Amino acid sequence: MKSEGDKIRVRYKDTDQMGVAYYANYLVWFEVGRTELLRRMGLPYSEFEKNDLYLPVLKAYCEYRQPARYDDQIELFTRIENLQDVRLTFSYKIRRGSKLLAEGYTEHAFINQAGKPVVLRKKSPFLWNRLLKAYDEQV
Amino acid sequence: MKSEGDKIRVRYKDTDQMGVAYYANYLVWFEVGRTELLRRMGLPYSEFEKNDLYLPVLKAYCEYRQPARYDDQIELFTRIENLQDVRLTFSYKIRRGSKLLAEGYTEHAFINQAGKPVVLRKKSPFLWNRLLKAYDEQV
Amino acid sequence: MKSEGDKIRVRYKDTDQMGVAYYANYLVWFEVGRTELLRRMGLPYSEFEKNDLYLPVLKAYCEYRQPARYDDQIELFTRIENLQDVRLTFSYKIRRGSKLLAEGYTEHAFINQAGKPVVLRKKSPFLWNRLLKAYDEQV
Amino acid sequence: MKSEGDKIRVRYKDTDQMGVAYYANYLVWFEVGRTELLRRMGLPYSEFEKNDLYLPVLKAYCEYRQPARYDDQIELFTRIENLQDVRLTFSYKIRRGSKLLAEGYTEHAFINQAGKPVVLRKKSPFLWNRLLKAYDEQV
Repeated sequence: MKSEGDKIRVRYKDTDQMGVAYYANYLVWFEVGRTELLRRMGLPYSEFEKNDLYLPVLKAYCEYRQPARYDDQIELFTRIENLQDVRLTFSYKIRRGSKLLAEGYTEHAFINQAGKPVVLRKKSPFLWNRLLKAYDEQV
Repeated sequence: MKSEGDKIRVRYKDTDQMGVAYYANYLVWFEVGRTELLRRMGLPYSEFEKNDLYLPVLKAYCEYRQPARYDDQIELFTRIENLQDVRLTFSYKIRRGSKLLAEGYTEHAFINQAGKPVVLRKKSPFLWNRLLKAYDEQV
Repeated sequence: MKSEGDKIRVRYKDTDQMGVAYYANYLVWFEVGRTELLRRMGLPYSEFEKNDLYLPVLKAYCEYRQPARYDDQIELFTRIENLQDVRLTFSYKIRRGSKLLAEGYTEHAFINQAGKPVVLRKKSPFLWNRLLKAYDEQV
Repeated sequence: MKSEGDKIRVRYKDTDQMGVAYYANYLVWFEVGRTELLRRMGLPYSEFEKNDLYLPVLKAYCEYRQPARYDDQIELFTRIENLQDVRLTFSYKIRRGSKLLAEGYTEHAFINQAGKPVVLRKKSPFLWNRLLKAYDEQV
């Protein structure tokens, strides 16, 4: 895990009448986490789509430990948890300071625009090798 | 104005920590209003896109009179306010019972997928005539 | 499972540039499902909050089988999966016609506004008994 | 206008099937703009609410010039356009590089939690004077 996470400010829009961030927002923040992780790996997600590669979500899970509140500066820590020929799993932790607010994962397929599963290694050896290298180098 | 509007239930998701519906949601509800109006006219918006016709928003305005709250059943009343060769304006009122909660309008262009403005009358006389007829028949 | 689910129309707002409903929306639809289930049980969620009872989400899970698309009329089928002194689990299926689009669950705590866990059976025997009865009567 | 705006990254969540940012998101970005402007003035909005002061939106307007797209880094430029005893208007410009994407304004009331209008100058001379000073010092 890198020492510093991706920072997100909780918006008024994100709150609900319980006075905390609404639970579906965490999945949106997960998206920010994987986008920024891929960017740091030199693989901006827009590059995937330019190569006719899409990563729709197959499964999403989140555990809520402590509520995030309006104007909190939260930090996202994202890892590639699993990398297979046709699937990719990211895991996430969301913290406020040293406190863990939530954690979860998303599992993604590799598909083309027509919706067909693709074997990333064959479809784009370049993206595959980058992803594999980044995955292996994770602490 | 038709006697009964399109009904929407305010979701917990729509609320914010002030305990009322967050202001950007009204524009989403406006979208529901124009979608349902077009459907009643026999012109579902998906038909527009199948004919390479898109209606991006050029301007949006909303006045907020009374807050909508969680679980409120609100009603949308939508009209075509103006119809021109290359533009279309919808107006909206959102009510809870007899009380006016908000009103506003959205102005739209007719464009194709490439983003070029199109003259609806030429591009699709069928859609244009339907729209014009519906516009003229509004009370 | 009841023969007919709660109907939701997929909004343009719900779509993303992949042309399908963005994955976090399913959690919002789950909220609609449990809200409507509680209402049918004669227990509108607003009644819970009036009794200083809140049901924050502890865990949320969703599996995505087939994408929901713009203007789809989808149906939600919601059940109480588990009911305990301090916890409640709902399960959900989202269908379009006979096709299963997604399924998942949410686990909730019973807390008061101060954020303390409460034993529903003690805090509000009325709500507890209603919930228990509805739970037992589920097919 | 300050030389550098508040930066926002367009999320996948913000896009719709037209491949651009959905129009209601601009009002959410406006919220970020005014939040950050108030913070720079030393008046974080959370301070308002701690003083039983709320700024609900009375009117919102947005003109859309050029679409914002996925992963765009956009910049927000926010000003206090008008400051009165019981009202406050912010204006916004959203740019991508030198290109203007959208502009608009929001008008807000000063109210207390009970929903009653308050004269900010009387309710909180401290907040009023800060706001007035910041307003006067704007270029």
